[in-house]
Amino acid sequence: MKVVKFGGTSVASGEQIQKIFNIVTSDPERKVVVVSAPGKRFKEDIKVTDLLLSCVEQYLSSGEGKEAFEAVVVRYKEIADYLGVSAEVVDRISMELLEILHGDRSDAARFRDAVVASGEDNCAKIVAAYFNVQGVEAHYVNPKEAGLFVTDEPGNAQVLPESYENLYALRDRSGIIIFPGFFGYSKEGAVVTFSRGGSDITGSILANGVKAAVYENFTDVDSVYSVNPNIVSNPKAIQELTYREMRELSYAGFAVFHDEALIPAFRAQIPVVIKNTNNPSAPGTRIAHEREHQNGPVTGIASDNGFASIYVSKYLMNREVGFGRKLLHILEDYDVSYEHTPSGIDDISVIVRQKQLDGGTEEQIVQRIKDELQADSVTVKRDLAMVMIVGEGMQQNIGTTAKAATALSKAGVNIEMINQGSSEVSMMYGVQGVDEQKAVRALYDAFFNNN
Amino acid sequence: MKVVKFGGTSVASGEQIQKIFNIVTSDPERKVVVVSAPGKRFKEDIKVTDLLLSCVEQYLSSGEGKEAFEAVVVRYKEIADYLGVSAEVVDRISMELLEILHGDRSDAARFRDAVVASGEDNCAKIVAAYFNVQGVEAHYVNPKEAGLFVTDEPGNAQVLPESYENLYALRDRSGIIIFPGFFGYSKEGAVVTFSRGGSDITGSILANGVKAAVYENFTDVDSVYSVNPNIVSNPKAIQELTYREMRELSYAGFAVFHDEALIPAFRAQIPVVIKNTNNPSAPGTRIAHEREHQNGPVTGIASDNGFASIYVSKYLMNREVGFGRKLLHILEDYDVSYEHTPSGIDDISVIVRQKQLDGGTEEQIVQRIKDELQADSVTVKRDLAMVMIVGEGMQQNIGTTAKAATALSKAGVNIEMINQGSSEVSMMYGVQGVDEQKAVRALYDAFFNNN
Repeated sequence: MKVVKFGGTSVASGEQIQKIFNIVTSDPERKVVVVSAPGKRFKEDIKVTDLLLSCVEQYLSSGEGKEAFEAVVVRYKEIADYLGVSAEVVDRISMELLEILHGDRSDAARFRDAVVASGEDNCAKIVAAYFNVQGVEAHYVNPKEAGLFVTDEPGNAQVLPESYENLYALRDRSGIIIFPGFFGYSKEGAVVTFSRGGSDITGSILANGVKAAVYENFTDVDSVYSVNPNIVSNPKAIQELTYREMRELSYAGFAVFHDEALIPAFRAQIPVVIKNTNNPSAPGTRIAHEREHQNGPVTGIASDNGFASIYVSKYLMNREVGFGRKLLHILEDYDVSYEHTPSGIDDISVIVRQKQLDGGTEEQIVQRIKDELQADSVTVKRDLAMVMIVGEGMQQNIGTTAKAATALSKAGVNIEMINQGSSEVSMMYGVQGVDEQKAVRALYDAFFNNN
Repeated sequence: MKVVKFGGTSVASGEQIQKIFNIVTSDPERKVVVVSAPGKRFKEDIKVTDLLLSCVEQYLSSGEGKEAFEAVVVRYKEIADYLGVSAEVVDRISMELLEILHGDRSDAARFRDAVVASGEDNCAKIVAAYFNVQGVEAHYVNPKEAGLFVTDEPGNAQVLPESYENLYALRDRSGIIIFPGFFGYSKEGAVVTFSRGGSDITGSILANGVKAAVYENFTDVDSVYSVNPNIVSNPKAIQELTYREMRELSYAGFAVFHDEALIPAFRAQIPVVIKNTNNPSAPGTRIAHEREHQNGPVTGIASDNGFASIYVSKYLMNREVGFGRKLLHILEDYDVSYEHTPSGIDDISVIVRQKQLDGGTEEQIVQRIKDELQADSVTVKRDLAMVMIVGEGMQQNIGTTAKAATALSKAGVNIEMINQGSSEVSMMYGVQGVDEQKAVRALYDAFFNNN
């Protein structure tokens, strides 16, 4: 059994939903289908989710918002018409949405969740109806009915463990299940949405719940690339990735999807395959617990910027048990999480995401380090970038560091920091923010362009 | 004004003390002379300090120890005879030592300090007498009389700040001051010795106290070498070092002298020159606050072994504010100080000196990390070595990492860990203990053998 999830561009139009139909029905294992809300059909288009957010804003501020509401209904209507789905389905969607909009708005976050979640919910209804029109048994399944219960945190729902058992029962239903992504229900019966990557989370939870053989995640790219295509043109596709590699890559701005969305699937060791709705015969990228080593030690290169380093020096720091711990405690008092802590004999640097230092936090932290730890000097450097090379087995491969450092040196990039030695699958190089793209290109050339 | 310190081999015999006389009198700036106790004259010889420790043991266990006592006196007598110093001086030394040995032994540590300190004290008396025999005005100065006061911690005295002011008055004395190294007096008047490198500490304190232009430290080597001569034969001499370089090199087993001994001199920014009593015309090695860059980015290579890494992994560790701090707190509870903490997204390693993990500490720490931090896995790897390359300005020199990593790679050494990015003057490579010497040689060849 496979759980198949389709993203926003895959349900953006009737034409796209026909592709979904073909993909799902071409493989009898594709039993559970999770859909997002209709996304953009062209660059300037507006996602249904964003139209719904306009509804939320207008209704919250003025108690009405006819135009925004109609813009949503038009999208569904166009899709339904194209697919030959009965007008009754759209009428019902329209009525129900109006009911939500005119309902209880006393809790803005809860109201927002209910309105926005309708985007996925109604899309699932239309897709199920289309499957039926085509003579295929398919059923829209509501998350509440299926038992997908979550914590009552609007916009940040966490799945409750009992949901997995409830969802297992979906295996026994007849026909294809069309399930809306992005939200579940609190135990009190309220709609609560997930955070970023919401429909990916739903698919991942369902894959775990029904113990799927594979979780297929259909997007609009053929595969995950070894490097950001905006930095390197036509980069090599990755055929296989491990969970660990995916997680390390995701950390450093590798934006295929939000890595935490996959956790429920990973926990059950269910392979995830990224595929393209517009080119379903392409093999895609498989993400699994293990993979065969191939193509050298490095699988992907990622980067992210906006880091700052807090440099602290104190003569004889080295002899002072507890110095590093006390330093981290000060950061924690300001809810600043740190990324790396390279250290010398009498100095230590803490690398953090610099936006955490805004609004006077930097000044307060620096002062406390000086006062409480009697540091000789404290300096903050901003605008650093982190470039990460990721690959299973890399650490056992003599020469990877040499190759990377030589590539950066030849490109004229100074290495400000190296974090290597804990993770077996990654090495991190800190460089000046202005050098980020140059560094990524140099490393890509070194590890992927052998000619 | 110069403070000049002579180590154990420089006062081991009458012949050596003649060299001291020539060195001191050849430069009128050499006004304050600090001496150690007589050291070894040949490989199998026994240092006076070790003879005195035998006296301590014997007197503590049996209340007598004639042979050990006489062995000490014979050494002084031989020196005095050779130098033409009056027998009265040795008789007096002999009487005073016997008085100490038959004195209060109720506090073993205090007794030990009093006996052992006599080694330096009596040597200073003989040296001063010899200068007088040669017609040069020189005075033995006792630390109590000069006001060198220290904390009352036998074997681990710390200088009291008021001492510096007291010692400043030495500037106004006539003639050459001959001062015993290794000990000061508590405010209650007891002899208390310094820790390792004791005479170096005395010289450093005096240099600070009299605001010397230079602190000359005479040993039995021509200079500090760029690498351990036991690993690389005929290594390049270092002409100039900065304090920071010295401190980083000392950390990793670079044993010219104990780096902390130099702190009083460093604090007053007094340059320290390492010279050879047996070859005083050699320029030696100058250690100062700043130096001119020369000979490429790397000044020295040091290494040390006996490190262990505690590897901790936990899924989503990255999102857990306070994880690293709590981990360090557990180590602190066992008084384990850490050296480095490389980290990945979901893992962190803490590198410590492994002897700290003996006696069941390892097991207790591992258990607590598992229990209290709910870590997914905790693994301890032992027998790692740290290899350090040190040089001012290295961090701004593009390509140093590439050169080092390439050298290690070519030598077949796997890099287990890199700590780079906080100290501006060092980079640290963690390797398997068995690879330590191979790694040091490879780095030396890369940075010092250009042909």
